Amino acid sequence: MSTVVPDDRPGVDDAALTSTARAGRGRPARYTREGLLELVVGVFNDRGYEAASMEDLAKASGLTKSTFYHHVSGKEELLGMAVNRALDALSTALDETADGGGRKAAQLERAIRRTTEVLLAELPYVTLLLRVRGNTDVERAALTRRRAIDARLAALVEAAAAAGEIRADIDPRLVSRLLFGMVNSITEWYRPDRRTAGREGTVLPKDTALQNTPRQDTVDAVVSLAMQGLHPLRQ
Amino acid sequence: MSTVVPDDRPGVDDAALTSTARAGRGRPARYTREGLLELVVGVFNDRGYEAASMEDLAKASGLTKSTFYHHVSGKEELLGMAVNRALDALSTALDETADGGGRKAAQLERAIRRTTEVLLAELPYVTLLLRVRGNTDVERAALTRRRAIDARLAALVEAAAAAGEIRADIDPRLVSRLLFGMVNSITEWYRPDRRTAGREGTVLPKDTALQNTPRQDTVDAVVSLAMQGLHPLRQ
Repeated sequence: MSTVVPDDRPGVDDAALTSTARAGRGRPARYTREGLLELVVGVFNDRGYEAASMEDLAKASGLTKSTFYHHVSGKEELLGMAVNRALDALSTALDETADGGGRKAAQLERAIRRTTEVLLAELPYVTLLLRVRGNTDVERAALTRRRAIDARLAALVEAAAAAGEIRADIDPRLVSRLLFGMVNSITEWYRPDRRTAGREGTVLPKDTALQNTPRQDTVDAVVSLAMQGLHPLRQ
Repeated sequence: MSTVVPDDRPGVDDAALTSTARAGRGRPARYTREGLLELVVGVFNDRGYEAASMEDLAKASGLTKSTFYHHVSGKEELLGMAVNRALDALSTALDETADGGGRKAAQLERAIRRTTEVLLAELPYVTLLLRVRGNTDVERAALTRRRAIDARLAALVEAAAAAGEIRADIDPRLVSRLLFGMVNSITEWYRPDRRTAGREGTVLPKDTALQNTPRQDTVDAVVSLAMQGLHPLRQ
């Protein structure tokens, strides 16, 4: 996609991908590279990556299948772009966490906070990443990068436990699984509220719980539950 | 399936579904009702329910497609049987939790413990349930039952917070989402160790962490992290 879509150049962002209008739409579909990727990821998340066809993607975008194939080799390329976006954001967040220095428990707390923030900021991309199962080369490459991130998080837990700054009575690898499992589970229910442009979140319409939970409240709750749960035990 | 598969009657469990041998297998495939469902759920979890076809199911079982269709109307019926097994087990666990009486926080602790135990005991069925997205009638019915269970769990958190027995500084509905998100995330990595017949657990072979974490250790870690994380704040 990177070689044929011109929207990385300044000034042409809004005319990157156009098509003749589909019956009933009234005007040509236009996408930035980012806009098209967001749409595709939405289809993958709704129907499942395996089940979504290039035809589904073309239909959802209002582009013809041949326009689509002119720009991307297939849905695997789109999957790669999407999951690498999530992985890049998570890696960068962990780099920043390590740069901060300080006590091990403080580094772990920053990692929990930043990871949750990235998950909420890049919600559809992280959601897709977490569903990847390793059936293709692109998926296996994503799993390898994801395992490296999980290993960095587990190492932070282990270092904080070894320093006596968090409880050490539970296997640090199990702690890491459960903590970041809690963080990742947010993708199952959190829905950004479009009315407030990403500042607030709502759950699925049919669900009565948690309407308009602000994003920051969610981050603070995760950090607070996790860090209190990890507090060293008093003997 | 319940009307045509005879294996609910005593004495015929091992001959419920048989087929002529497929080339290379050497003997007819034989399944109990439960054995066949377990196999089908494994295929659903591996490939995704949407992507798995009746042909895939027949192939994995060694049964012919026509034998399969003789016993079930289609994959949606199998999905219904599988997710209702998980939902029945979770509902029963919550009924037992409520029967116990006592302080609200103790009831919540029992609910966390029993829910985690059921998840581990019925791992493939709960895994499938948690992936249901509501695309068909069977899936929507499962989501409705799942929401009712989530509401009971949220009510337990709310009651314990209202009684001052757990911290009340975080919205109880958000606490409930995060806690049971942590519990549910276990389906993402826990793999029963077949060598020890369900007593022990291992993660996926390629993962180096958490080999042979015993099931009870996982349950205890969840309960301990959750209940310490929920402890009322000292002012």
